[in-house]
Amino acid sequence: MESSIPEDLRCPRTRARRVRDDYAPPYPAWVARASKSVRQVTMAYFGLQWKDTDLAAQANAQFAQLTAYFAAEGGPVHFDRAVEIDAAGFNNLIAIAYWTDTTAFARWQADSKLAEWWESRAASGGRLGYFREVFSPRIERFETLFSSPDRMEGIGVALQNRSEQDVTDHAYWGSMRDRIPLSQTDALEASGSAIGRPGLSASQRLRIAGHENLAIIRSGQEWTDTEGRERALYTTEMEPILRAGMVFLRDHGSQIGCYVNRYMRHVDASGQSLQKTFGLSYWRSLAQLEHWAEFHPTHLAIFGTFMRIVKELEFNLKLRLYHEVAVLSQDEQHYEYINCHAGSGLLRAGNQG
Amino acid sequence: MESSIPEDLRCPRTRARRVRDDYAPPYPAWVARASKSVRQVTMAYFGLQWKDTDLAAQANAQFAQLTAYFAAEGGPVHFDRAVEIDAAGFNNLIAIAYWTDTTAFARWQADSKLAEWWESRAASGGRLGYFREVFSPRIERFETLFSSPDRMEGIGVALQNRSEQDVTDHAYWGSMRDRIPLSQTDALEASGSAIGRPGLSASQRLRIAGHENLAIIRSGQEWTDTEGRERALYTTEMEPILRAGMVFLRDHGSQIGCYVNRYMRHVDASGQSLQKTFGLSYWRSLAQLEHWAEFHPTHLAIFGTFMRIVKELEFNLKLRLYHEVAVLSQDEQHYEYINCHAGSGLLRAGNQG
Repeated sequence: MESSIPEDLRCPRTRARRVRDDYAPPYPAWVARASKSVRQVTMAYFGLQWKDTDLAAQANAQFAQLTAYFAAEGGPVHFDRAVEIDAAGFNNLIAIAYWTDTTAFARWQADSKLAEWWESRAASGGRLGYFREVFSPRIERFETLFSSPDRMEGIGVALQNRSEQDVTDHAYWGSMRDRIPLSQTDALEASGSAIGRPGLSASQRLRIAGHENLAIIRSGQEWTDTEGRERALYTTEMEPILRAGMVFLRDHGSQIGCYVNRYMRHVDASGQSLQKTFGLSYWRSLAQLEHWAEFHPTHLAIFGTFMRIVKELEFNLKLRLYHEVAVLSQDEQHYEYINCHAGSGLLRAGNQG
Repeated sequence: MESSIPEDLRCPRTRARRVRDDYAPPYPAWVARASKSVRQVTMAYFGLQWKDTDLAAQANAQFAQLTAYFAAEGGPVHFDRAVEIDAAGFNNLIAIAYWTDTTAFARWQADSKLAEWWESRAASGGRLGYFREVFSPRIERFETLFSSPDRMEGIGVALQNRSEQDVTDHAYWGSMRDRIPLSQTDALEASGSAIGRPGLSASQRLRIAGHENLAIIRSGQEWTDTEGRERALYTTEMEPILRAGMVFLRDHGSQIGCYVNRYMRHVDASGQSLQKTFGLSYWRSLAQLEHWAEFHPTHLAIFGTFMRIVKELEFNLKLRLYHEVAVLSQDEQHYEYINCHAGSGLLRAGNQG
């Protein structure tokens, strides 16, 4: 086994882990590894939003345009497509694109026609909404976890590498924090608040400034390979409980520090649903995300149901799980919304700020 | 607020707490405090066991005899009466008696007619079973927690004192361990195994030798003061989930390190049920008790349901909760069974040992 923290980021801890030094997890898990040259990555969420069905074709055409820019030089190493119908009943079609070099991302945004296209969306005045939520964590500010050693997801695909062995820092409450390299010496406490930037045409285009140590998590599951009893358990027992927790965070999360939650389904290039979903949520602080996980009845129900299934299947699962978590400095976040409804993404938090 | 660890037992930690030094719990709780002269207490479980209804009167008469010895000089500072029907369908009527001085307990056992009575039970050859499970933890080896500042339970009643203020060390996973003074410098790892002592008349009288760092917990709830919605939630939602977890530990606990679990109801001197219950369980190690609490679906269901009710009632609860936990050295335990069935108490573990 090896530490989840890469060797070159390990340092003498001023903050203790939540387990003893001789802790060994009861089952294996793996983390993504960056090559030495990677110092800051970009996770960019580009979204399209619409309500009326008659806009779907137009949205899909715009989405095709967006992903065509991805194919340009300097485009993302990897991207996913996912859909969500949000609490206001709007369709959201999102491309999640990953770069292992945030400078390359910035260059691509500037050089490709993406920038031009984006500016023109603001002027287009149509009924489609557009947003981009761009996170560029330095490598000491994010962590990943995978239940299987093969077929990475998200930033793991982009990094193209994983820990050689399974890691020591998982399967205990608090391990998420302990896997973030900066947590060795920093409490990762939130400060400031998310504020809408005035000065832009408010009704059509809004930027939100994030705050220090805002936390994000993308936490996913794939049931493609499941069969028989496991498939039935996932579909009839696990998924409804997971969904209930996701809906709680979406509709009531603001009470407990969750600004945004989207429960999203992967789709392929033709728009067909895949057997993969993820929860994507933005939090005021890592501490509040931890508190939800450890103490909130909705997550205890999710985790308890999962543990029940794991035991029933005697740890023989074909369900695949992963997550990626980042705690962002203020300058590693960019939120921008064109023609989106007021409950979209961080707009809600920003408008409250 | 104050530390749950008494001032005279605090020492430089060689083992970190599971929270940061600046942690503050989100709601209050209190602990029992021993006066300075108290160094080692005794928690003695004296049980009567029978199956056939026609033995009830005889059992009650013996129980009355037992509690009459309690009234003798040097008897317990406090005792509770509680009943359980066990997995084998036997009735168990237990007196839980507390001394704040284990030497005084030993003297009372010797001087009172209890010793004589106990010896004569072994020779009586009747159909009643008798057992005593006696725990005498030194004060660095146990901790308590109470949800209310008034009306202590168990060892708290005997100690006749509580923390002046609410304590800092609760409401996080791992706080139970952190409240045990010895955990500041000791991993409290189990070693050895529980073994039946040969040489006594095996079918009638068996002693079990406990092993180093066996852990016990008495964890109780009282709903006497609840009303209306809270009472309905406790009765219809909380209690059935709690019961299911207790039955799991009773019937399948041995798979996960739980030797014994009794889900017991308090009764008064006339045998009438009170609105108080507790789970009493004996574990191979504190670590296994912790693991059940943090990761087992049965406890996650109990805790998740409780948190759901707490939130629904906006933290205004009249339900009263408490527990007492001890991690015992080998010499702080005494188990003895006369004419009890093979699944009684630690007999099961001892017979497997």
